[in-house]
Order: sequence, then structure tokens, then C-alpha cells
Amino acid sequence: MSVPRIVILGAGYGGLMAAKGLAKELNENEADITLVNQNGYHYITTKLHEPAAGTAHHDHARISIPSIIDSNRIKFVRDCVTGIHLDKKVVQLKNNDSLLYDYLVIGLGSVPETFGIRGLLENSYSIRNINSVRIIRQHMEYMFSRYALEKRQELITIVVGGAGFTGIEYVGELVDRMPELCHDYDIPLEKVRIINIEAAPSVLPGFDQELVDYAVKYLESKGVEFIVNTPIEECTEDGVILKGGREIKAATVVWTGGVRGNKLVEDSGIETMRGRAKVDRYLQAPGYDQIYVIGDCSLVFPDENSRPYPPTAQMSMQQGKYLGRELAKVVRGGKMEQPFEYKPKGTVASLGRKEAIGVVGDRKIIGGTAALIKKFIEIRWLFLLGGVSLVLRKGTL
Amino acid sequence: MSVPRIVILGAGYGGLMAAKGLAKELNENEADITLVNQNGYHYITTKLHEPAAGTAHHDHARISIPSIIDSNRIKFVRDCVTGIHLDKKVVQLKNNDSLLYDYLVIGLGSVPETFGIRGLLENSYSIRNINSVRIIRQHMEYMFSRYALEKRQELITIVVGGAGFTGIEYVGELVDRMPELCHDYDIPLEKVRIINIEAAPSVLPGFDQELVDYAVKYLESKGVEFIVNTPIEECTEDGVILKGGREIKAATVVWTGGVRGNKLVEDSGIETMRGRAKVDRYLQAPGYDQIYVIGDCSLVFPDENSRPYPPTAQMSMQQGKYLGRELAKVVRGGKMEQPFEYKPKGTVASLGRKEAIGVVGDRKIIGGTAALIKKFIEIRWLFLLGGVSLVLRKGTL
Repeated sequence: MSVPRIVILGAGYGGLMAAKGLAKELNENEADITLVNQNGYHYITTKLHEPAAGTAHHDHARISIPSIIDSNRIKFVRDCVTGIHLDKKVVQLKNNDSLLYDYLVIGLGSVPETFGIRGLLENSYSIRNINSVRIIRQHMEYMFSRYALEKRQELITIVVGGAGFTGIEYVGELVDRMPELCHDYDIPLEKVRIINIEAAPSVLPGFDQELVDYAVKYLESKGVEFIVNTPIEECTEDGVILKGGREIKAATVVWTGGVRGNKLVEDSGIETMRGRAKVDRYLQAPGYDQIYVIGDCSLVFPDENSRPYPPTAQMSMQQGKYLGRELAKVVRGGKMEQPFEYKPKGTVASLGRKEAIGVVGDRKIIGGTAALIKKFIEIRWLFLLGGVSLVLRKGTL
Repeated sequence: MSVPRIVILGAGYGGLMAAKGLAKELNENEADITLVNQNGYHYITTKLHEPAAGTAHHDHARISIPSIIDSNRIKFVRDCVTGIHLDKKVVQLKNNDSLLYDYLVIGLGSVPETFGIRGLLENSYSIRNINSVRIIRQHMEYMFSRYALEKRQELITIVVGGAGFTGIEYVGELVDRMPELCHDYDIPLEKVRIINIEAAPSVLPGFDQELVDYAVKYLESKGVEFIVNTPIEECTEDGVILKGGREIKAATVVWTGGVRGNKLVEDSGIETMRGRAKVDRYLQAPGYDQIYVIGDCSLVFPDENSRPYPPTAQMSMQQGKYLGRELAKVVRGGKMEQPFEYKPKGTVASLGRKEAIGVVGDRKIIGGTAALIKKFIEIRWLFLLGGVSLVLRKGTL
């Protein structure tokens, strides 16, 4: 009798937690566990705004997958998923043979949501993965290096589209980076323009107003310009055109305005909204048994009448942890004992290295305290992944 | 009675040596000395290939001018020269008032010589000054950062046009940089192509054949491809087209194929060849008294039947030192006692950090010894400019 095959697609927060959890619960006679990921590393999405601005090397935001999994229990396949065939229970890979599974966990992350903005994919960058943030940083520095010769303002103008979590954290990081960058390229700091554009009436939509005011005041004091209530209508080679026709010339446009689920989910036939599967209470894809969707590919609602939870690392981690525990029961022939329930533990948005805003439980936190808690959250993730040794190797304060 | 005004244009090797020499020889009742330079810093041309490749920060190749001159004796004007009017004895500046002079020393450096290659100025970079090498480095890194996503070979192909001194030194530096750069951008080292193209039958034309062979063998062992005896016919947005029609696609093309004198010299009415003034034995511009031309703007011949000396830092330094001593005599009402005579002390070309080739006196040197002598030459220049303190501040081994 063959051992059930669990295949996990994607080594993000959810996929890694699920793989590690299942490997802990099930022994080798109970299940084969295969983890598929495009890169040999996991990247820490919540830190990507740092290498994107150049305040940290991108190696601080990635961790070699073989270094944090038990290779006796989890088979790691470094490959790109090209198709999911639910009817045949097969995952198509780009370079290796296809994989057969009995249980499938889909955690393939997200792609930028363009909201129909013309030219966005062609002319803007997004804070999405290690490859994309390296390009943002190098593009920006290349533009800054040209300023001394060409003296065109757009070379040192950065437009950040979207003032949600990623947008604000990136802007905060840019503010920290600029003094050094300007010094390096002999550019007067006050000449640089950082413009954050948001379609909603306020930055950080949905966040506590007092904290939003703190963030805006702090970032404005560092020279950031906010334009709210104004959708971007088009992104061109020269910059952006706002609703109403105003043009802002900028050599660097970074889009942080939202994400949609990986197209592979939609293409597999699973019913989706914005590319995300509206999973059931056990994280199963609607209409499919033994197919679980987690992370940015999944859509979880607090209740029937509410908007879905936003896709966050915290959500993915809790989903992965849940599957690690409950899916093990199913594999053993039992069933899931309790449905998935998301427990929001709080949110902290960094504003550069030493400032942050956040809510933890019922408490609002700001400034250095919030920045410290943000660091603590990062270090906790490193600890979950690789214990104390990984914290010592990758953690920074 | 007013004090004679000496105006020195350009704070390169020659201009700085002349200014410092004159300030030492003449007291404030004998002459006013004004040094004009576009930037607030002197840059060490012989080190520019390092920041261009990214093996050193560009600040290692520049020195603040006020930190190395005696501001009581030398008035430093940071401005861009826009015209030299020899008939009115006036130098036109961009931002300040124009300057009147009694004695003029022109050391305004060089610009790339295109040899009529189509598209060269538009589509290639040159190792010319701090601004230009910052752009080369950032452009190259931006291209490398895009490779992981786009996978196009031309993004990680670098064409260096010209295998003279600068070309070979830059290629040597690139070879040193590549392992780190490839690691940073997850690029297999063997995929990178560095192609050095030379129109002459051999690299380092005019250099000792044994040393040339050593350099070529070393650089080829590191993966560099040499194409000699082949002029570049056109430089396009996609790369270069060689004589005969062969196209090499490369996102980064760096031209090191030669220089011509600053156009201001030609425009002033001084007779020039390739923008360089064929100065007399006292470094005077042909047909003008009290107008001296030094460095890359000047053309010095060993004798009537020989080719001119190549423009080098060594030549500029000796010319500047000569003027510092002999022009002082003229200003005091005397005349120059001896004509300028260039004394070649040897040449060393670096091949990255730990390798070099050279000739010192009659001795050929290679490898680590040559690399050490190259460092010694650099440190000697720092010592001449700013004494031991500058050596300690800027010197590296």
C-alpha cells in the first residue's frame, strides 16, 4: 500500500508553516510531503520594502529553504508550477516531471492588481519578490546617478502608487535612505520628490485615524507629498497621469496598490474572486475535496456580511499552522475537528528604521515602541522558521 | 600697482600641481592665484576604473579641493568655464562673473574621441569623471538586476571598446567584481560575457609584447573575450556593430578608445590637433605669450619626427610641476630658464586588485609586485596633494 502524497505549492508563510507542521505531525509511513517553490529561498514579504529602498541588502529578506526544512521528511523541489490539473490530480512543472498528489495545498502567492490602470504593468515596478525589489533599487540608483549630468527633476522623483501598508512602509524606508543616496550622488536632499498617491480618501484606509495622522505628519515632515482621493488613471514611460488629467513626471514609479491571487488558481478551474479562492471553513477550495488554498490565493471572510480579511503574512501563517495540524488528521483517515478561525493579533506598519505605528490587541502604539514590536514580529517569524540559530544569523535590530 | 593675476583652469593633475607649486614659489605681493574647477573635488583619473566596475566607492577616487590647497594663497572658484577670450584676457564662467588674467594655465582635460563611430556618444558610456563612472556602475547593476526576470543574455553582456590602458584596467576590475555581482543577482558567473574590442592588431598597442601576453592570458583565464584588429563601426541601442557587419548585443557598452582635448581650447582660437594644443618647449600655446596649456589639452612631442606622447597623469603632473617652478620666474619679471622635458618614469596597468603589468625604468614587472607598485604610485599622488594625512585618509592597499 502506497503512502499518501501531500504536495504543497509555494514556500511562502503559509506553505512553509503547513510543510513544517505536517512533517512534525506525520511520520514517513503516514505521508510523503513535497514542497515546490520557484526559488531556492523563502522571502520575507514583510521586509521587502527595505531592499526595495536600499536600506538593507536583499539577502536579509530571504532564507535558503533547505536550511530550514528537515530534508528527511520534506522533499523540496525547486521548480516553477505551470499548471494544476485537479481532475487528474497532477501538478505540471516547468523543468521536472509532473507531480501526482493525493492532498494539495496551494499557496502560490499573488500578483499586482492593476485595477484597469493603463500602462501599469509595463511602466511601473512592484514590491513583490526578491527579483522585483532588486530591480527597483537598481533602477532608482541608476536614475539618481544620471541626475548630476542630466539635471532633470523626473530622474529624482519617485511616485509610489497606493498608500496602503506596503506603500507607507516603502515611503518610510525611502525617507530613511535619501540622505545617504543624495550624498552619494551629490544631489541636494530637498530636490528629491517622493509622492505617494492613493485613490481612497485617506492613506492607510481602514487604519485608526490617530495613527494615520501620526504617520502622515511624520512622513510629511521628511518631505513626502501625499495626494489622496485621486486615482492614477495611466502610467506612462514619463510618469503617471492622475484622474482629472494632471501629469506627474517620475522616472521611478512603484505600484503598491493591491494584489490578486496567482493566475494558476483561476486557471485550474477553482472559482475565484480577483484570482483568490473563496475557501470553505476548512480552507478547502469550493467544490473540491483535499484541495486546500492558503495565503494570498485564498479569500477568508469573518462572516457572511463582511468584507474579506486583507491578505497578510499573519493570515497565511495562521492558515499554514492550521493545516499542519488539521490536515494531518485527515491524512490519517480522520477528519478536521475544528474549522479555521483567524485571530488577528495586531498590525504594525514601519515608517523607516526607527518609527512605526500599530495596533496590538486594543492598544495603539507609535514611534520607537512600535518599531521595536515590528522587529519582534520579524524575529518571531525567523524563530518559527529556523529557531535561535536563524534568528542569530538573519535577525537585525 | 596691482599684483599679476594667474588663473588656472582645471584642478586635474596638472592644474593642481601648478597651483600648489606657484603658491609655494610666489608670495601674496607677487601674484594672485585663482584655481577654477567645475566640481568641488579633484578626481583621480587613474582610479576611475574601480568605481566604474564597482570594486571601490567613487569617494575613494575624489578629494575635496579646499582640503588640499592653502586658501590664503589660492582662491578656489567652483564654476564651469564657458569660454576663453584670449584677445581680451578674459575667462567666461557659467555662474560667477568672468575672470581677468595676466597669466593663464589651461588644464581642462579631455572628452571622448569617437573616431567617427556612429552612435557612440548616444549609446555608450565613458570612464571620464566621477559622474560618468557612477552612471556606468549603476547602469550595469540595473541591467544585472533585470536578468533574473528577463533572462536576456545582452543584459549581462558588457562590451568594452578599446583595449588601451583604461580599457584593460577596467576589464581587470570587472573580472574582480563579477563573482560578487553574480552572487548578488543569482546569476551563474559563466553566463556573464565581458568582450573587449580593439581596432589595433593587439591589445595595449605599443606596450611590451611579453607583458601584453601576460595580461591577455590572465584576463582570458577569467573569461574575458578579446576581439582585436576589428574596429567598431556603429554603436546602437542594442550593442555594437563591428567592421564586417557582425553585431554584438550588449546592454552595457563602455568606450575607452581614446580622448581629445576639451573643446574650449579649440574654440578659443588656439591651434589644435584633435582638440589638443601643440605647445612650444615652454608649454606655451603656439603664437600666444603667457598662455600655457597642460595635461590632456596639450600635445608634447619627444622630437620633430616622433608621435606625440600619450596623454597621461604622469605627463600632466610633470607639466604642472614644471610650470609651478618656471612660471614663477616669468611672473617675477624673469624668464624660463629651461624648457620642459618629459621624463617617463614607467607605466603600470592594473588587472584588478592583485594583478598588474608594467615597466619601471628598464625592468618589466608582473603580478603582485606590479600591483604593489601601482598602489605606490597612487599613494605618492595622494602624498603630493595632501601629505601623510591624505594618504591615511584616502589610501588603500
